[in-house]
Amino acid sequence: MIDRLEDSPLYRIAYPRSVAFFGASNNFSRMGSIMLSSVQSLGFEGTLYPIHPSETMVRGLRAYPDVQKLPEVPDLAIIVLPTEIVCQTLEDCGKKGIKHAIVVSGGFREIGEEGVKRQRELISIVKKYGMRILGPNCLGVANPHHRFNPTPIEAEGAPGFVGLASQSGSFITQMFNYLYRHGMGFSTAFSVGNEADLDVVDCLEYLGACPHTKVITLYLEGIRRGREFMEMAKQIIPKKPIVALYVGGSEAGKKAGLSHTGALSGPDEIYDGLFKQCGIIRARTLVELFDFALALGTLPPPRGRRVAIQTHSGGPGATAADACGRNGLVLPDLTPETLEKLRPYLPHTASTSNPVDLTFSRNNEDHFSNIPRILLEDNRIDMLLVYFLSPVVFIRRFLREMGVPEGRMEGLEKEMTEKLTGMFLDLKNHGKPILGYTFRSLEEPMTRDLLFHGIPVYPDAERAAKAMAALLEYHRMKSELHARHVE
Amino acid sequence: MIDRLEDSPLYRIAYPRSVAFFGASNNFSRMGSIMLSSVQSLGFEGTLYPIHPSETMVRGLRAYPDVQKLPEVPDLAIIVLPTEIVCQTLEDCGKKGIKHAIVVSGGFREIGEEGVKRQRELISIVKKYGMRILGPNCLGVANPHHRFNPTPIEAEGAPGFVGLASQSGSFITQMFNYLYRHGMGFSTAFSVGNEADLDVVDCLEYLGACPHTKVITLYLEGIRRGREFMEMAKQIIPKKPIVALYVGGSEAGKKAGLSHTGALSGPDEIYDGLFKQCGIIRARTLVELFDFALALGTLPPPRGRRVAIQTHSGGPGATAADACGRNGLVLPDLTPETLEKLRPYLPHTASTSNPVDLTFSRNNEDHFSNIPRILLEDNRIDMLLVYFLSPVVFIRRFLREMGVPEGRMEGLEKEMTEKLTGMFLDLKNHGKPILGYTFRSLEEPMTRDLLFHGIPVYPDAERAAKAMAALLEYHRMKSELHARHVE
Repeated sequence: MIDRLEDSPLYRIAYPRSVAFFGASNNFSRMGSIMLSSVQSLGFEGTLYPIHPSETMVRGLRAYPDVQKLPEVPDLAIIVLPTEIVCQTLEDCGKKGIKHAIVVSGGFREIGEEGVKRQRELISIVKKYGMRILGPNCLGVANPHHRFNPTPIEAEGAPGFVGLASQSGSFITQMFNYLYRHGMGFSTAFSVGNEADLDVVDCLEYLGACPHTKVITLYLEGIRRGREFMEMAKQIIPKKPIVALYVGGSEAGKKAGLSHTGALSGPDEIYDGLFKQCGIIRARTLVELFDFALALGTLPPPRGRRVAIQTHSGGPGATAADACGRNGLVLPDLTPETLEKLRPYLPHTASTSNPVDLTFSRNNEDHFSNIPRILLEDNRIDMLLVYFLSPVVFIRRFLREMGVPEGRMEGLEKEMTEKLTGMFLDLKNHGKPILGYTFRSLEEPMTRDLLFHGIPVYPDAERAAKAMAALLEYHRMKSELHARHVE
Repeated sequence: MIDRLEDSPLYRIAYPRSVAFFGASNNFSRMGSIMLSSVQSLGFEGTLYPIHPSETMVRGLRAYPDVQKLPEVPDLAIIVLPTEIVCQTLEDCGKKGIKHAIVVSGGFREIGEEGVKRQRELISIVKKYGMRILGPNCLGVANPHHRFNPTPIEAEGAPGFVGLASQSGSFITQMFNYLYRHGMGFSTAFSVGNEADLDVVDCLEYLGACPHTKVITLYLEGIRRGREFMEMAKQIIPKKPIVALYVGGSEAGKKAGLSHTGALSGPDEIYDGLFKQCGIIRARTLVELFDFALALGTLPPPRGRRVAIQTHSGGPGATAADACGRNGLVLPDLTPETLEKLRPYLPHTASTSNPVDLTFSRNNEDHFSNIPRILLEDNRIDMLLVYFLSPVVFIRRFLREMGVPEGRMEGLEKEMTEKLTGMFLDLKNHGKPILGYTFRSLEEPMTRDLLFHGIPVYPDAERAAKAMAALLEYHRMKSELHARHVE
């Protein structure tokens, strides 16, 4: 494993200072044009060299008819050209001395015999010039921290902490919006396509060393270098968690993967064993992949599996208790000291068993600060799960009742919710994992505030419970790997 | 089972013409005041009689010091008073001749011995006056079709087709926003609380006869009248589907339910068997409950479990294939005729196995009309699952590139997406179930349009696959019940 990010063959792919761009033109309906436009719109600060046979300016940039004519040797070439001319173009890049390329074009191994032959030719060019490439049949990279997003969809939200290595290009570009809505962002995301040269193992190595990456996610249709994959994962797990979604295990998933990137998949059980052995958390769906990433990337290690649930409604409390139970979590009774401390804050209708059900509480501060603080102080409690109805629902009605004019409403609402959010965030000082769930939109301002300040809020108790289970699983596997190492 | 809704003891609770309201005042921090305000804000057209010992006007309505003083006998009493005076108040209502009541107040069986005694007293009053009540410890009812929502949260969205009988009050009021965001709305929702008189079986009967209700959802912590419950369900299933979420099966869920409504739960397996026997679909989470309701309430019966997946991205296609595989669905190869018909619409990079992966298609009409139509015409295909990236992402960029001024953007976008939505909705004529999934927000206008016009769109392929499985399960169980009946 590398110590410095700069030692990764992917470094100048994720952090290019200059890029030769093949396939962009002034016709916006071309994939290449769309991708170049994404790079521009995120404000990439390096130099872009569109290569175009006839246009002298492409999207406001000086274009060159030929890579040989470039005034310097760019760090990276991005190739979005018809299949037939890809090999020749890569050869030209090699001759120019370009050492890194992203081959976006498809029509290689994934289409069968003819493509296999073409891919072999591509590899021989790569070898001949000592190049390193991502692809073919990929989207390459999205590195928001470098303002570098040569993918078809514009980046959204701030750079984040989620690393991704994906055997599907879609997920490095179509998930910007999803991650943003769920309180996350990519550190760097790689699409490996057919993995003719650089593959998932190289991405793992890179993301393991990447300082922005707090958690690594993988989308896999099949692993090519099994042994190296495992060795690499084992070295990373002590430093940061890895979550993997593998879809090649079901018959349908296997077939779909084959026609997608030509990946060779294996039975589900084999992958299950492989992931367990090297300490990787397995996600069953894309939603789980990023749900787990959110918890793993934000929460401190839990001391155990004992959860306190705080709710102000019985039903949401009971469904959360049920979800926790089904996911191997434990809901202990609160200590007598905790019950004593809670007493002044709870109405007589409240339930002080676990879930703690405040029922109707008049004081938002109790819900956002006093009561959760007491629960976190209980030494029988390892994690706290809080149900959020979003106080905005009631705050707005109270303000309206008090005759606050509509114009002042928003400002007052903001002030009040920010105060509550601030109080709640202070609870993080206890060092115990705190999670939330709500059935309201995650896009409500208060929930967004919590999300972007390290409180994972899930749109369902089940998803929160599974995320807690994944968090426990990671820390258990990490200790096990450590113990094995010490032996 | 009743033939006419009017024969249900719940009829005048859901459709009152006049209501005596106990516990509302001009102090908005009271639960009763908040609930009355919800009734007013939805524009209830019946007569509201606040009963208040000292105020002469409550929330702009003439108030009465005593129920005896009312100018008529109202259809319904709603009681949101301190526990201690609930029984006396109900007695007063009985004397006045009021036949229906919702007892919101808690402090009865759910708090233990003392409460059990109090609940017994309550029941004896109910019997004495021949009344029928919901509660105590409940929120009663929300009937948007009657503009009647005496619950703490204001109703959102249009009246809908989802019936709910819930042993948690939260779910009849805190889910307005959730349902609205997911393309649904309540027909009528009942909160039964401690079920001292009317219970889940009565609600089932009502919802079975309710013409607005296309699908019945149940939130259960324990069933009291098992035999009657099953009999009622069996009679309803041939007419409409029932989905149940039961949380009393896990140790944690059982404990939470007990302190919530004092429900007596049973082991999970027993409930599993019970549900299967009478044809009820079981949901494991609240999200599943309403996911299934969406599919069951909108889709025609599928002829079989063969699904075609249409995508324009390999990864989302493969995850959907995997999800279908794991949920008992089948992805057949397309017929040679279908492949022939598809040929003109697909770029050479496309995959014509199932999932059908359009890759990069330039023509939105192909995606929204031509290709799905061909897939629906294939007689090997029973259901269609379509991945939506939301064309808005690209439409906006194209318009911007074309120099369309920002001011005209929204209008043009709206026009273009409405055209595509219209085309897609025409596909419903084929009579086969069509579902969508997306990783973008369900709140985007196009997705909302599809949702509210009978195309269930899920924020994940897994949820769509599970909903298809539930749809198949319902129709299978319905036929089985029918076959047993014919024997």
